[in-house]
Order: sequence, then structure tokens, then C-alpha cells
Amino acid sequence: MAYDLPRRLTAEALGTALLVCTVVGSGIMADSLTDDVALALLGNTIPTGAILVVLITILGPISGAHFNPAVTLAFALRREHSWAEAAPYMAAQIAGGIAGALLAHAMFDLQIVQVSQTVRTGPPQWLAEIVATFGLVGTILAGIRFRAEAVPWLVGLYITAAYWFTASTSFANPAVAIGRAFTDTFSGIRPVDLPGFIAAQGVGAVLAVVLIGWLIGRDRTPANA
Amino acid sequence: MAYDLPRRLTAEALGTALLVCTVVGSGIMADSLTDDVALALLGNTIPTGAILVVLITILGPISGAHFNPAVTLAFALRREHSWAEAAPYMAAQIAGGIAGALLAHAMFDLQIVQVSQTVRTGPPQWLAEIVATFGLVGTILAGIRFRAEAVPWLVGLYITAAYWFTASTSFANPAVAIGRAFTDTFSGIRPVDLPGFIAAQGVGAVLAVVLIGWLIGRDRTPANA
Amino acid sequence: MAYDLPRRLTAEALGTALLVCTVVGSGIMADSLTDDVALALLGNTIPTGAILVVLITILGPISGAHFNPAVTLAFALRREHSWAEAAPYMAAQIAGGIAGALLAHAMFDLQIVQVSQTVRTGPPQWLAEIVATFGLVGTILAGIRFRAEAVPWLVGLYITAAYWFTASTSFANPAVAIGRAFTDTFSGIRPVDLPGFIAAQGVGAVLAVVLIGWLIGRDRTPANA
Amino acid sequence: MAYDLPRRLTAEALGTALLVCTVVGSGIMADSLTDDVALALLGNTIPTGAILVVLITILGPISGAHFNPAVTLAFALRREHSWAEAAPYMAAQIAGGIAGALLAHAMFDLQIVQVSQTVRTGPPQWLAEIVATFGLVGTILAGIRFRAEAVPWLVGLYITAAYWFTASTSFANPAVAIGRAFTDTFSGIRPVDLPGFIAAQGVGAVLAVVLIGWLIGRDRTPANA
Repeated sequence: MAYDLPRRLTAEALGTALLVCTVVGSGIMADSLTDDVALALLGNTIPTGAILVVLITILGPISGAHFNPAVTLAFALRREHSWAEAAPYMAAQIAGGIAGALLAHAMFDLQIVQVSQTVRTGPPQWLAEIVATFGLVGTILAGIRFRAEAVPWLVGLYITAAYWFTASTSFANPAVAIGRAFTDTFSGIRPVDLPGFIAAQGVGAVLAVVLIGWLIGRDRTPANA
Repeated sequence: MAYDLPRRLTAEALGTALLVCTVVGSGIMADSLTDDVALALLGNTIPTGAILVVLITILGPISGAHFNPAVTLAFALRREHSWAEAAPYMAAQIAGGIAGALLAHAMFDLQIVQVSQTVRTGPPQWLAEIVATFGLVGTILAGIRFRAEAVPWLVGLYITAAYWFTASTSFANPAVAIGRAFTDTFSGIRPVDLPGFIAAQGVGAVLAVVLIGWLIGRDRTPANA
Repeated sequence: MAYDLPRRLTAEALGTALLVCTVVGSGIMADSLTDDVALALLGNTIPTGAILVVLITILGPISGAHFNPAVTLAFALRREHSWAEAAPYMAAQIAGGIAGALLAHAMFDLQIVQVSQTVRTGPPQWLAEIVATFGLVGTILAGIRFRAEAVPWLVGLYITAAYWFTASTSFANPAVAIGRAFTDTFSGIRPVDLPGFIAAQGVGAVLAVVLIGWLIGRDRTPANA
Repeated sequence: MAYDLPRRLTAEALGTALLVCTVVGSGIMADSLTDDVALALLGNTIPTGAILVVLITILGPISGAHFNPAVTLAFALRREHSWAEAAPYMAAQIAGGIAGALLAHAMFDLQIVQVSQTVRTGPPQWLAEIVATFGLVGTILAGIRFRAEAVPWLVGLYITAAYWFTASTSFANPAVAIGRAFTDTFSGIRPVDLPGFIAAQGVGAVLAVVLIGWLIGRDRTPANA
């Protein structure tokens, strides 16, 4: 069931677009309906976790369903994804992420292109993004190793938890972060804060490749056993 | 395990009735218990997502568990459902949808037949319904292609997300929309707004058949391989 | 993996006790923490749905995990449970249900034995219980027919939905109803209202045996095919 | 797929750290966003249940994913875990639990080392911890016996319910309790209250080994059948 590159890049772009559209759209919906921020966060969390299970299940067989440059980086570092395709994958993810934010604005009758003014910076936030991305990439690597068919659920549940236990609400994804810089609503992030977040996400991904990679071990079964 | 037409139409009508009864009934319950609209929407979302998993699992083996003329249309376009049975399926779904709204009113001791006065119209709402139905039909088509036994969960989770990320709270279903025109409670829609919603749902379904159909590809394994 | 009667009755009593303890205890907890009744109902719904998945999974292989005289009745009517064991099953369920309510009181430092004063009566409530029990028994019968390993999930999700879409919050279980008559907290029901609820539950169970029984059909595969 | 002791102890420490980090971190997040305590508890419950499914799935194949001295004790009593490894397992769990609390503080920009002042004591609370741990250990033992692949879900769902139906919000874990003594936030517990909680948890675990052990029976299939 090998898919050609155009279909794979379309799957990455479409999946990331629907992911960011869900994050941004549910944030707008929740924020408009309540003054209680915990409730708004819950209205942001549940849809995001739910759509991740769906998108990874239905697009995973086509492109691997990374939707996330940090995940593509981790797979490339482990030689499970070709370096040559890393750049087009990441470009598709970023383009999709931005499109998803704009689509949410169009549905909610807001100005289509916006620039976020929400401050998200400082060492505790960066630590949160390192932890969030370490956990996400670790979940994916160990999930694939031990229970591949459960990975959509594991990612959805992990992000459901990480929205709340990390101080940054767990972006954990450079393409999603870039998309969210284009919305000045509940889930936005100032463009100037992107480099810190993206660097922290890269650190978290590398840490997961090293530590979780050691922990789960390589599959040592020789191919001709 | 082929079921006769009366059983299949009963399954479509019963499933759509219980679906609309859940949407309308949980809306009435939630709206009566809180002044916070985000909380009311959560009390509407969780039951709807949950009942979809149940209904599709238990009635799917009988009728396919469409419960939705947009889904029946998509299957007919893909020649996976006979055109001859499309009309009776849709009629059963619409009859069930209306009956479900009336049943909810009877349980909550409200006037049995009502006409909604809730305005839901305009291009952003129609765009939301296109997106919502595109996503729903795409989820079903790709889910059947790659992971058929997970489809009940995928649909329940998709609708859980789409309640929040689409500005229309994701009707995505002409039979449900018609049923909801018969209730002047939390989940209603003015009858005059139905044509716009139903047209948008048709557009979304056709878009999914084309785009997701291309993306997932046809199963090319020859029958006599 | 056939279990003896003492183990089966212990499983029925223990499961029903933990079920009622969850309904009553989470009702006390939720009601004490918030003034928003929709939020209290959510804090009652989520634990109940979750514990049902657990209890049916871990006790089903021992006793069938009925925890509910209406379910035992339905199985007996379908000759899938012996009539001779129906009475001891129901007695164990009722004893467990009462014990569960008392245990919740002990944990929350309340008077151990209470009598509910919450009015739950009238035709709309009875209709709600007919619908709730019809749906529950139908879900179980069709679930066993088509996807037996999913039944714990189907029941947990069904009750999650039925808490909200039925006007009675879906007792759907005579043993649970009797247990809840022993608590004068959020989830209670006046003893004088029990007969109406229990009769409605019986009607719903019989309707499901007839209608869902017809819909799903008998397995017609001859044993020696 | 046997893992060496360093990897197994790392898995226990890492898993317990992320579990406590989720409990403490989501408690801080929820408590800071709302004045409604039921909503804060929901924001504490959902992430904890979700992360348990993830952590047990991805670390279970390495260490068994106890994350809990009461669970290690139960397995040792049943001779399913070596007594010689019980102490190092418990030490890793406790070290991880403390580290998880400190990590949450660092992410939320709070004083790293804190001492809780939250009173949690008295016979009803101890009864709640006996019930909570009995249920948790019983769920694990019966889950492994009948449906091993579902244990991550069963534990996540059990704790989701037990947060609400036990008066203590279900610590049910001495390593988590010790970790939570190091935070003076929503989920803390005074150090002086630890002995009562830990003793109650031990009683609950032993009760589960005896009662649930009897109920599920031993697997009597002879090894050389």
C-alpha cells in the first residue's frame, strides 16, 4: 500500500490543516461561549484529542501522519524516514498549519489573516515545550515499537493530558505553532515567540530519540532469522 | 449476514431517531441545568459522540448505519450502495430524525411538535457545513478503506471535535437537520435555513468523494488475483 | 472458564455495589464542589460510564456482568440465562446495590442509612425509563450478536449518553434504582417512586427483546454445519 | 522481549514521574483557571486518566508499568514479581514520583521544592483509600487474567471514576502520595498524613489479592498440557 509523493504530501498538509483548524476553531468557539478559562481549555482539549485519533487513523496509512516537523525529524534521525523527504514533508505541514488557521477564521466570520499578540515566552514555557515534545515523540516511538495499531489513540490521549500538565498547553509541534501565530484568538502565539518554542521542541524531540530510543531498544531480530 | 430491506430500513430509522433524540434531548437537559453555554455545548457534545459509537456498532452490520442522506449519497456515488435503495434509505432517515425530536419532547414533558426559531444561516455557516460534512464523509470513506472496525469510534470522535471546531456545531447531516427543525430548543434550526444547510452538506459530501476518494485510491487488487 | 455459583453471585453483588457506589459517590462529590447542576451531572456521568467499562470487562467472564435485573430478565426471556438462576442473580444485584450506596456514605462521612426524598415520577419520567432501558438492553443484545468484545465499551458509552438524553438521567436498572432509594443525595429517588420506575424498566426490557430481537435475527447457522 | 534491570527501573521511574507530573501539573493549571472546584477536579481527572493509558501501554512491555508500590506488593504476594526486585522497583517509583512533582513546579514557574499543607486524614479518608486501592489492584489482577491487552484502558478508566466516587479522590498509590506531599498546590497532601494513606493503600492491595484472587481463580492449565 505504498502511496506516491503527491498523495503523501497532500495527506500531511490536509491532516495538519484540520489539526490546526480544530485547535484554533475550538478555541474560538469555547472562548466565545464562556468566561471560565478552565472550561474554555476543556472545550479546546477534547476536540483536539478527538481529531488526532481520527486524522492519524485515516491518514497514517498514506503518509505516516506526522503532521509535525519534530516527528519527521525524529523519524529521520532514526533512519525510519528519508532525509530527502524531510524538507517537503515539513513544508507541507507548515503550509497546512497556516491554511488551517485561516479556514477557522473564515468559518467563524473573522478577519482571515491575523497576527497573534499572545505572549508565550520564558524559560518555564520553554521547559514545558521540551517536556511536551519529549513526551509526544517518546509516545510515538514506543507506541510504534510495542503497539503500532494503538498509536492514534496514544497520541490523542497524550495531547489531551499535555494540554493540562504542561504550562504551555503543549504545542509540541513547530507547524502547529507557526499556524497558531496567524490567529489572534484563544490559541494564538506571538510570531516573535516562535523561535524559542521551536528550538525547545527540537530539543525535546532529540532527547526522546536518545532516551526513549535507548529504553525501548532496537529490534534485534535479524532479517534472515 | 445479509438483512432484508424492512430490517435495514428499520435500522436506519431507529438509528437516526436515537441520534436526533440524543442531540435534542441532551441539548434540552444541558440548557436547563446551566447558564454557561460552553458547558451546555459540552453536555450536548459528549452524549452525541458516545451514542454514535454505540449506534454504528450495533446497527452497522444490519444496514450499514448511514443515518445520514449525505453518507448514502456518497456511497451511491462510489457505487458502494445501490441508487435504487438511496431514496428509501433517505426517507427512513428523515422519518427517524423527526420522530427522534418528538420523542425527546415527550420525555422532557414539552409540546410534542415544535418549529425552531433558531437562526443558522449565512456564508460562514454554510462554509462550516461544507467543512463539517467533508470531514465526516472523508472520515467514513478513509476509515472503511484502512480500518473498518474502527469506523464507529472514528465517527463518534470526529463529531465530538466538529461540534467545536466548525462554527455551525456540525450538523453535517440533512436528516438530522430536518429533525432539528422540529424543536425550538437548544439544538434547533429554523426550517427556512434548511435548504442552505442541506446544499452545503451535499457539496461537502461530493468534495469528500472526489478528494478523499483520490487520496485513498481504489483497491486495485484484481478480484481473481 | 466456567465459574461456580458462589463466585458468580459474588461477582454480580460486587459489580452492582461498585456501580451504585460510583453513581452515588460521584454525585455527592460533584454536588459538593459546584453550584452548576450541569457540571454536577457531568461529574456524575463520566465516572459512571468509565466504571461500567471496567466492571463489565473484569467481571463479565465470571458472571456475565448483568448487574441489572432488567438485563437478567432479558437474557432469561431469550433462554440465554436459566430461569432458575434469575432470582438469585437479582437478589445479589439488589443486595449489592444497597451496599454500594451505604459504602459511599461511609467514605463521605455521611449518615450510613438514608432514605431519599427526591421526587422522580409521572408519565414523562416513565417514558424516559422505558426508552433508557430499551436502549440499554438493545445495545447489549445487538452488541453481543455483532461485537461481543466491545460490549463493555458500548454499555459505558450508552449510559454516558443516556444520562443526558433521557429526562430521568437513565436509571434503566431496578437494582440501581433500589440502591439509590437509600441515599438522600444528588442521585437519590424516593422509595414511593420505585414501582413506577421498575415497571417502566421492565417494559423497556421486554420491548428490546421483541424489537431488537427481531431486528438482529437469531443466528441461524446450524450447529452441525 | 526481556529488558535488563536498568531499563526496567528507568521505565518505572520515568512512568511514575510523568504520572505525578500530570496529577500535579494539571491540578495547578486547572486551579489557576477556574474558581469552580468541580471543574478543577475535572481538569485534574481527564489528563490523569489519559496519561495512564499512554504510560502503561508504552512502558508496560519494558517494566510491567507498576508505577505503584501497592501494585508491586500485590504482584509479589502472588509470586508474579520477584521479592528481590520489589525494593528497587519501589525505590524507583518513589524517586520518580518526587521528581515529577518538582518538574511540574519548574514548568509552572513555582518554587521547586514545596511541602504540602493540605489535610487529608481521618477514618472516612482511610476507608476511601482502602476502597480505591482495592478497586485499582482488583482491576489490574482481573484485567490481566481476562483481557491483558485492555489493562492500560481499564486502569485509566478506573482512576477516572475513582477520582470522583472515593472521598479522597483516589490516591491509591504510595509513590504518588509521597510525590504529592512535595507540592503545596491543588493535589497536595501533608507529609504527616502519609502514613495513614499508605497503610490504607496496603490494606486495600492485600484485600484485592485475597478477594479478587479467589474470585478470578488461578489459571489451572498445567504447563505441559
